[in-house]
Amino acid sequence: MSLPPSSFPEQARTLGALLRLPYQRLSKRLYAEMADSGFGEIRPSHSVVFRHLSPEGSRLTDLAEVSGLTKQSMAYLVEYLAQHDYVTVGADPVDRRAKRVLLTKRGHVFMKALLAASSRLEDELGKKIGRTKLQNLRTALADLDEAITALPE
Amino acid sequence: MSLPPSSFPEQARTLGALLRLPYQRLSKRLYAEMADSGFGEIRPSHSVVFRHLSPEGSRLTDLAEVSGLTKQSMAYLVEYLAQHDYVTVGADPVDRRAKRVLLTKRGHVFMKALLAASSRLEDELGKKIGRTKLQNLRTALADLDEAITALPE
Repeated sequence: MSLPPSSFPEQARTLGALLRLPYQRLSKRLYAEMADSGFGEIRPSHSVVFRHLSPEGSRLTDLAEVSGLTKQSMAYLVEYLAQHDYVTVGADPVDRRAKRVLLTKRGHVFMKALLAASSRLEDELGKKIGRTKLQNLRTALADLDEAITALPE
Repeated sequence: MSLPPSSFPEQARTLGALLRLPYQRLSKRLYAEMADSGFGEIRPSHSVVFRHLSPEGSRLTDLAEVSGLTKQSMAYLVEYLAQHDYVTVGADPVDRRAKRVLLTKRGHVFMKALLAASSRLEDELGKKIGRTKLQNLRTALADLDEAITALPE
């Protein structure tokens, strides 16, 4: 769907927007494909949970912090995914008052399918815009990320 | 903060991740700068509200749909911003049962400050990695966005 233009048209041309728009478009396509593959409960907004889950599980508070969400918002996403059998939530082995989030078997299957679809989509884009151009873009993005990291505080 | 590596290391090298990481890093810097400038209540996760607000205001349901959030999550963000005087929420003039979200004067001041900071940061990055290289990256990102849009369903 589209909305009327924002009050701040220059917003659409910031470097941030230029990075965000293709990211969101890729993400939307991938999750639509996942829905067609039997993972219809997952929305792009759930990716912040999957993205940072470590093999040993991750603490809910850490997941919230690293993704910039409130603990309440992260808990809401995690609870939804637990209800649909993508993650389990248990007590943290180190701090029993904390909660630890783990991928289930279904969560693993979903992640494998998502990464395979992502790889196929990237191949398709490489054919469209040229493999060299896509590789150059990948390099430029990694360089940009490094440059931002290296900026003085 | 950092977390242990994800269970799926190849995830870090998808095109999506290469787009997302510098976007998130830019965003984090900008919002930290905004916090220093007196807008400490705003978090990067609130950007989904500001991004799509049209000059005449936007319906809560439309904001949720365009940003891929549930209506409940969007309502939670909007309520927070209304409490801190960045937006107001009123009845929609067309559909009285719907809610319309509008920027307040403070919301406008914030957006102007955010866009000015974004422009300064991009100048700084241009000096670091080279203006031509940054301009080429901007063009490549716009081309990528177009290529994704043009992919067959």
